[in-house]
Amino acid sequence: MKIVALAGGVGGAKLADGLAQALPPSDLTVIVNTGDDFEHLGLHISPDLDTVCYTLAGLANPVTGWGRADETFHALEAVRQLGGPGWFALGDRDLGTHLERTRRRRQGDRLSEITRDFCRAWGVEVRVLPMSDDPVPTIVHTTEGDLPFQEYFVLRQAMPTVRGFTFLGAENARPAPGVLEALQRAEAVIFCPSNPWVSLDPILAIPGVRAAAAARPLVAVSPIIGGQTVKGPAAKMYAEMGIQPSALAVARHYHDLLDGFVLDTVDAEQAADIRSLGIRPLVAPTWMRSRADRKALAQAVLNFVQTFIN
Amino acid sequence: MKIVALAGGVGGAKLADGLAQALPPSDLTVIVNTGDDFEHLGLHISPDLDTVCYTLAGLANPVTGWGRADETFHALEAVRQLGGPGWFALGDRDLGTHLERTRRRRQGDRLSEITRDFCRAWGVEVRVLPMSDDPVPTIVHTTEGDLPFQEYFVLRQAMPTVRGFTFLGAENARPAPGVLEALQRAEAVIFCPSNPWVSLDPILAIPGVRAAAAARPLVAVSPIIGGQTVKGPAAKMYAEMGIQPSALAVARHYHDLLDGFVLDTVDAEQAADIRSLGIRPLVAPTWMRSRADRKALAQAVLNFVQTFIN
Repeated sequence: MKIVALAGGVGGAKLADGLAQALPPSDLTVIVNTGDDFEHLGLHISPDLDTVCYTLAGLANPVTGWGRADETFHALEAVRQLGGPGWFALGDRDLGTHLERTRRRRQGDRLSEITRDFCRAWGVEVRVLPMSDDPVPTIVHTTEGDLPFQEYFVLRQAMPTVRGFTFLGAENARPAPGVLEALQRAEAVIFCPSNPWVSLDPILAIPGVRAAAAARPLVAVSPIIGGQTVKGPAAKMYAEMGIQPSALAVARHYHDLLDGFVLDTVDAEQAADIRSLGIRPLVAPTWMRSRADRKALAQAVLNFVQTFIN
Repeated sequence: MKIVALAGGVGGAKLADGLAQALPPSDLTVIVNTGDDFEHLGLHISPDLDTVCYTLAGLANPVTGWGRADETFHALEAVRQLGGPGWFALGDRDLGTHLERTRRRRQGDRLSEITRDFCRAWGVEVRVLPMSDDPVPTIVHTTEGDLPFQEYFVLRQAMPTVRGFTFLGAENARPAPGVLEALQRAEAVIFCPSNPWVSLDPILAIPGVRAAAAARPLVAVSPIIGGQTVKGPAAKMYAEMGIQPSALAVARHYHDLLDGFVLDTVDAEQAADIRSLGIRPLVAPTWMRSRADRKALAQAVLNFVQTFIN
């Protein structure tokens, strides 16, 4: 079963890892948000891409979900001692990724080529694609002004009240090589439990992606459980955008696209409302606390997805 | 006694540290070679400047002489795993220096300003000046072609046979702010035991520096002991340039500039030849194996220097 998964950071990476456990490598392509990519200390940093790749490679920090396991922060301590910007947590091993990515970007290699080579070096067998090789930075419009995503998310710790989002340059960005082809060949598309506003919407803003995803059987997994997120500001964003955060709100967010929607057992009472949107609900345990949980959820989602494939 | 010391890497840094131990901080300015500066992995790296500053700050690796104490190499290991260039040893703490220097260079700050601020952050009280804020890369002409300095020195481990050196752009480079003023105000100038060809000659190639140094009482300390160097390729370079490596050869290298010359006790028999060049010799133990050795040599050099000051 050829599957394309769309993913952002930690939650998306976990389900991608579950899918990678459940499927042969050649059957899975993960398309990753790069709207939160930014340049920091002269380095090209792709936080979501790294989180997905580190997770798939078994290199991710099991406590934070982002960054690398067994990490040290000696370079960052040194930068801080010199009065440099210390707000973005750059581990030493992680820095190696950014240094080499930056070196290759400067010599003209595309992010998708670099990602392919990094995955090979890390032993990641499933295909991981950035949504685009073109920069499409997410701008967060807040009551305190417009903020580049990482300044909003990390420096300001997602505290400012959001009013909207712009995916800068999305209309002229090209999908990375393989993105549209993978979607067109997919038997089904899965939206991982990632932030709809700033992880999945940026991917869907790349010309052609939304239509290609909509043309396939499409199932989303709710990142909101019991009105809250396991991680990240998605629930806070819904509230600030004037929408009660819930699994139902996520289903509505994508309702024109979805065939199926997976919501947590604690939200089972929302299944009827989702069904009334014309979306088939699946109630399942979605909180992935362990690697086994990831695989179990992936298997449940794949079984559900199977029912949409002729 | 206002002293200006010219220094390259490890040997120069050690005597600079000795002088810093022996003089009030306001009496010492160290002018450092930047001819071996280069860009690597997108980072602005100033190896000699860092060696001098780390040494003065007590942060230097006591075994290698370069790099930092208690260092880890996790970022470099990660770069190597990704197939990136791993030939230049970049420690994690050291990387912090390069990252912050690069960030500040990109925002338009000059190397001399950055160095001043770094020294303040590291608690270095003596003044450390790069020879120039302009890039003056040393090109090593070898029988295998022209090589940028670090490729010759680190990547090729100083193996190719040298034929000469070019300090690219030196004729149009400006001395860093304070360099000429410090030389003009100095009661004496000391050439640290650094490589004449690729550490001190580049400094002297900056317009105005040679004349300003020559106008003051000037004492050099031989980097060659018993025909060899404690560290680095200076002796090999002399041989390849057709000159028998010796303290005498170093004295001849600078003979038009020098008032005094300090050579090691093992080379005492060369004192007469040095005297016949019109240079007053001082025979002293010059091999600095400990911090105390550095101070003892500095004190001996300063006592010697005193005899040239009216």
